[in-house]
Amino acid sequence: MEALSVISEYVRHASVSTDPAFAAGMAGAREHAARLLAGAGLAVEIVPTPLHPIVVGRRAAPAGSPHVVLYGHYDVQPADPVEAWTTPPFEPDVRDGRLYARGAADNKGPHCVAVLALARLLRRRPALPLAITFIIEGEEEIGSPSFGAFLQKHRAELSGADFVLLSDTGSPSAEQIVVTTGLRGIAGLEVRLTGPRTDLHSGLHGGAVYNPVQALVEICASLHNADGSVNVPGFYDNVVPPERWEREELEKFPLDEAGYREFLGVDALYSQPGVTPIEATRHAPTLEFNGIGGGYQGEGSKTVIPSGAFAKITCRLVPGQDARDIADKVTAAIRARVPRGITASVRLKQGNNAYHVCPPGRPNTPHGQNPVLARAFSLATEAITDAFGRAPLFLREGGSVPIIGDIKAQTGLDSLMIGLFTPDSNLHAPDENIDLAIIERGIRAYEALLEKIALGQ
Amino acid sequence: MEALSVISEYVRHASVSTDPAFAAGMAGAREHAARLLAGAGLAVEIVPTPLHPIVVGRRAAPAGSPHVVLYGHYDVQPADPVEAWTTPPFEPDVRDGRLYARGAADNKGPHCVAVLALARLLRRRPALPLAITFIIEGEEEIGSPSFGAFLQKHRAELSGADFVLLSDTGSPSAEQIVVTTGLRGIAGLEVRLTGPRTDLHSGLHGGAVYNPVQALVEICASLHNADGSVNVPGFYDNVVPPERWEREELEKFPLDEAGYREFLGVDALYSQPGVTPIEATRHAPTLEFNGIGGGYQGEGSKTVIPSGAFAKITCRLVPGQDARDIADKVTAAIRARVPRGITASVRLKQGNNAYHVCPPGRPNTPHGQNPVLARAFSLATEAITDAFGRAPLFLREGGSVPIIGDIKAQTGLDSLMIGLFTPDSNLHAPDENIDLAIIERGIRAYEALLEKIALGQ
Repeated sequence: MEALSVISEYVRHASVSTDPAFAAGMAGAREHAARLLAGAGLAVEIVPTPLHPIVVGRRAAPAGSPHVVLYGHYDVQPADPVEAWTTPPFEPDVRDGRLYARGAADNKGPHCVAVLALARLLRRRPALPLAITFIIEGEEEIGSPSFGAFLQKHRAELSGADFVLLSDTGSPSAEQIVVTTGLRGIAGLEVRLTGPRTDLHSGLHGGAVYNPVQALVEICASLHNADGSVNVPGFYDNVVPPERWEREELEKFPLDEAGYREFLGVDALYSQPGVTPIEATRHAPTLEFNGIGGGYQGEGSKTVIPSGAFAKITCRLVPGQDARDIADKVTAAIRARVPRGITASVRLKQGNNAYHVCPPGRPNTPHGQNPVLARAFSLATEAITDAFGRAPLFLREGGSVPIIGDIKAQTGLDSLMIGLFTPDSNLHAPDENIDLAIIERGIRAYEALLEKIALGQ
Repeated sequence: MEALSVISEYVRHASVSTDPAFAAGMAGAREHAARLLAGAGLAVEIVPTPLHPIVVGRRAAPAGSPHVVLYGHYDVQPADPVEAWTTPPFEPDVRDGRLYARGAADNKGPHCVAVLALARLLRRRPALPLAITFIIEGEEEIGSPSFGAFLQKHRAELSGADFVLLSDTGSPSAEQIVVTTGLRGIAGLEVRLTGPRTDLHSGLHGGAVYNPVQALVEICASLHNADGSVNVPGFYDNVVPPERWEREELEKFPLDEAGYREFLGVDALYSQPGVTPIEATRHAPTLEFNGIGGGYQGEGSKTVIPSGAFAKITCRLVPGQDARDIADKVTAAIRARVPRGITASVRLKQGNNAYHVCPPGRPNTPHGQNPVLARAFSLATEAITDAFGRAPLFLREGGSVPIIGDIKAQTGLDSLMIGLFTPDSNLHAPDENIDLAIIERGIRAYEALLEKIALGQ
């Protein structure tokens, strides 16, 4: 299988964008992406950025031809905890029809589907009237800090395209594909509290000094109410609730709470007012602790009052919320709750608003409908139904692909998102993997979709 | 200065008892301690234990001679965060009349004072009628798990002694020595919470699953009340309040709140009902977070819902509280506050009750008075006043020396504790150090005290 060898070679490059120690992996993955695009017949340009360059492949076509922007990212999440992986994260391993490696699902496998489909299609129809701009960036996992400037510089080229096509979202299985109609936004913060000038002996000084860990747990605990909602003034202001058809479509999703509990390995799901746990992941905003640390971390005990402590926090946002506004509100809530004797620094780490479109034939959402995208949705429905044997569901997803909103804002382009990873793909977690059946079917669907777009059928 | 070279060589042995990686440092420190005792004229025995052997030095004397048990420990706290030290923790460095190294103050320097004083005294008076049992253990920093069995085995020998003499407590400065009349006890716990079976993508699953870090901060935050007291049912039951003379003696302590704030580097001290911050460190129980961790710890961001999180907790206890009872109560409070969807393990790490004696001429405490110890206190007052130029204060201390209570329980012996480290000794913290002036004066005081005890003057 050509796709397996292409993706396997790609994931061997440990392209962790957040950590400078992985510079060689970033360069290797970038060169691999460039070779793939060139192999598909595109003209490749490496666009420098202040951090990780962007790989762009282009195909010209006669004036009046459709123009599709394809998107992927060659960077991956850190692999830690590495010891929790069954096989090493950057050594691809095939087990039970799945390819295991960091980046296999997020996002190397899925954008390889598009590249390989395009290569097949252009081998079969070398004169196809279809313009392509294929963008593979290297900073998605750190919030795409260089992508805004890239969009500004290429605004003229991109604004002339029809829409963006990408696969950086999920589907329930290789039998049921989801076309993603919305993404949550994200607002990330890092809180650092400092108390005494140095770690202190907890016997000699315990009782006289506010322990920064105590202050941190008290502040963090104050950020949710007892009913599970977020306790930050104004957090839910402006939230646009989901349409009825969106809740009904989600009920068709082949997952119930018992199955979800079993999948997650928990005896109860989290609950908050007015929303089921499964709805919450797609339609509700959250405030989540991604990491916390302070004081002694090793084996055994060390009886200190730590000098400092930190928490890494991200909020997932829904339509109507503004990332900067939410970050400001959370920051203000944290600052207002810092006790005397403790100093706080709160740094904004990343921020992007939610994105939302309405598929054809559905009641209009406040976010409007785009006729170019509507036609693409219809063609995708045909191509996906043919390749996978079942029509796609149209659902919002809980994850964030921040650049989708940026592209819309800068170029006016909407995005057609086809989910190619599955719930057991373990994104951002140990044993990340992708279903090889979805790869094969995905290539067929992408090939048919691009052909339909080019030929107007 | 003989003491400086002896202590400098001793602290080069990185004897971190909690971490098996430091086995060579433990062996080196133990051998150094054995050589020191032999050099003072004692017969040395290395007593094996399940973990770190105990070094014992003995001197026989004619029947009817006073018999003093001396105590020290050759193990030290971990040195992390190592990068916060001005000079490497196991390379002794002298700056401004202080010796900097891990263990310089806790406890290698102070028990070297006793060894060197004994060596000087016995060179001057080789036939002195004074029996000595000098015990230097290697597990004090991990709660002395082997010491109970050692005491049982040597109960007959030790029960025949008069009292224990040690320096593992503090004094405000080289000008004002404290004789310590009480120590807080300790009850240590480690809490581990587990949620989903693996780290999860916080976008895909955020909103449906109880984040273990959220559960941990909520549980930990619940352990204190808004007024600063501990919110564990029954925590303050049976607490014996300090005597009036103890509060008055503490007022003579040369430290005010402004000076303490400046020393700690904080703009406000912690407060709790009915006790000033300075009193709290010696007379009130605490519940302290020594470490917390969970989720992503590295640079940048990683948008996970962590699978688990932990907190290391120790309570400092005062007379009347029972360590096992407090550990049970804190464990019960934590277990009662674990939300659905999260499982908790709470492990008992260490536990010892507080210790308390009453010096001569003070109103009796409920803990009684020991006439043998009263005489030793009087002789110590003379020796300390001579060597340091000022009479000692009699104060309880906030730290814990768990073996003091064990010795009392198993052998009936009380302890005379002379404080030889100072507030700026940075115990359990970076840049640990000891004042070389206190070492010199301490040796003179110990030499005079041991001579007075032997000669009954």
